[in-house]
Amino acid sequence: MRVGEAESRLDHCGTGKVRLYVEADLGKGLGVVPNRDQIHYLLNVMRMGDGDHVRLFNGRDGEWLGRLDEVKKRSCLIALEKKTREQDALPDIWLLFAPVKRARLDFMVQKAVEMGAGRLLPVNTARTNVARIKQDRLRANAVEAAEQCGLLSVPEVEEPQSLESLLRKWTANMGGRRIIFCDEAAPKASTLEQLQGLGGAGPQTDPQTDPQTDPQADPQTGPLAILIGPEGGFSPAEREQLLNRDDTHAISLGPRVMRADTAAVAALAAIQLVLGDWRG
Amino acid sequence: MRVGEAESRLDHCGTGKVRLYVEADLGKGLGVVPNRDQIHYLLNVMRMGDGDHVRLFNGRDGEWLGRLDEVKKRSCLIALEKKTREQDALPDIWLLFAPVKRARLDFMVQKAVEMGAGRLLPVNTARTNVARIKQDRLRANAVEAAEQCGLLSVPEVEEPQSLESLLRKWTANMGGRRIIFCDEAAPKASTLEQLQGLGGAGPQTDPQTDPQTDPQADPQTGPLAILIGPEGGFSPAEREQLLNRDDTHAISLGPRVMRADTAAVAALAAIQLVLGDWRG
Repeated sequence: MRVGEAESRLDHCGTGKVRLYVEADLGKGLGVVPNRDQIHYLLNVMRMGDGDHVRLFNGRDGEWLGRLDEVKKRSCLIALEKKTREQDALPDIWLLFAPVKRARLDFMVQKAVEMGAGRLLPVNTARTNVARIKQDRLRANAVEAAEQCGLLSVPEVEEPQSLESLLRKWTANMGGRRIIFCDEAAPKASTLEQLQGLGGAGPQTDPQTDPQTDPQADPQTGPLAILIGPEGGFSPAEREQLLNRDDTHAISLGPRVMRADTAAVAALAAIQLVLGDWRG
Repeated sequence: MRVGEAESRLDHCGTGKVRLYVEADLGKGLGVVPNRDQIHYLLNVMRMGDGDHVRLFNGRDGEWLGRLDEVKKRSCLIALEKKTREQDALPDIWLLFAPVKRARLDFMVQKAVEMGAGRLLPVNTARTNVARIKQDRLRANAVEAAEQCGLLSVPEVEEPQSLESLLRKWTANMGGRRIIFCDEAAPKASTLEQLQGLGGAGPQTDPQTDPQTDPQADPQTGPLAILIGPEGGFSPAEREQLLNRDDTHAISLGPRVMRADTAAVAALAAIQLVLGDWRG
């Protein structure tokens, strides 16, 4: 499934400007077989043929330039020619968000990916009134945003879970990851000073291969999660629970009420600016 | 014309939660006749009747609670009861943006209003490929966002103009308003430090009634405009022209490429945080 391709791909038609996320390993001399949707996109939507170039990434091996080969009616191969970018890591900032409805949920996921969220966790809250979300669709939106916006990895989109159960397990499972709680009822204060008091997020690491970061090494640095509430806000009980946690820091997103998808982008921008990879 | 009302108004059905922007003066004992679209919305969409409450604002007189009166099939009156909020002013931060296509343009305008942009100026650039924008639709989006997000004024949406002509007239006409140019090709640096070097924006003032601010009074404070380019970026000639201006400051929006509507929200968040009214 590809979302909104006709409109959004128009400015990606140049040679090698098409980017695709693949699962396969990427390396010199390797060939990649695109999946059915990708073949449709390359051959029918973009009308590409033998010798045309695309860029591929898989979240592990950097970005590779590949050349279409053996193009038939419903199949082709992408022969990898050279690495065009080294793999990087997103800042270790997760986004916890209450699902909103359809079009706004698509936008929220796309935009969170563009803003460099490292992982997306839908959380059901007392006032969440979205019955069921389509995991496949969220994932497709995340892949598309990563492809279009030049990312080298696609953040995971988790299964929805209840805020209560997530918080119950948080301390034991999350290795000291702090929660930045975007609180509509926060006293108006300097959000910049609040954020500067928190200390930055480092890059995401892979727990399979990277040693655990020593939290003593730099107490001002560590993984973060941003929590954005539903359109109706958190319930008083949820808010109290959040404010009572040692690992949770309430911030204000300014004097105006924002819709949830706007708040997600605004919070990610503020936090990337002060604690993430906008620090240069 | 009202945009997306069915979905977006669902959580505004409580007493007095419906907010409408009107042109009329607001004050104790006054009555307001809603326009035809508003009457349809109140009576048919929200199914309101005699005695139900709405809130009204006009950008001048604060927010007023009103009561529906003389409800007939296609008409009603709103009798004002009391002022519920004092008028405020948005930070004096304009958004200059290259129009994008339809749905994304709607979102860009709605979100810029939610983020507290003081005025919206569509600018046509070398790489803008949107032939014509519907002024009425942009305005309707701005009104709707202001109504829903609790604002007390609706930012003006100007007629589109070319970037070149806007820049030519800028120095003579804009009273020292500085341009923050969101430059995709900016060297990666600390955006926070770049913004902190600029000095903040005060509240918007009405040139008809307010005396001209003395720019000598606080050289670190003054009106700002944010410039966001089209999806394909600015042309090299445009970029050079912008970088050569004394009143224009290039900043980086971090290491990732964003779509134009995302960039507008992210830039407004960063600038409200550091220079605008998120400062508490």
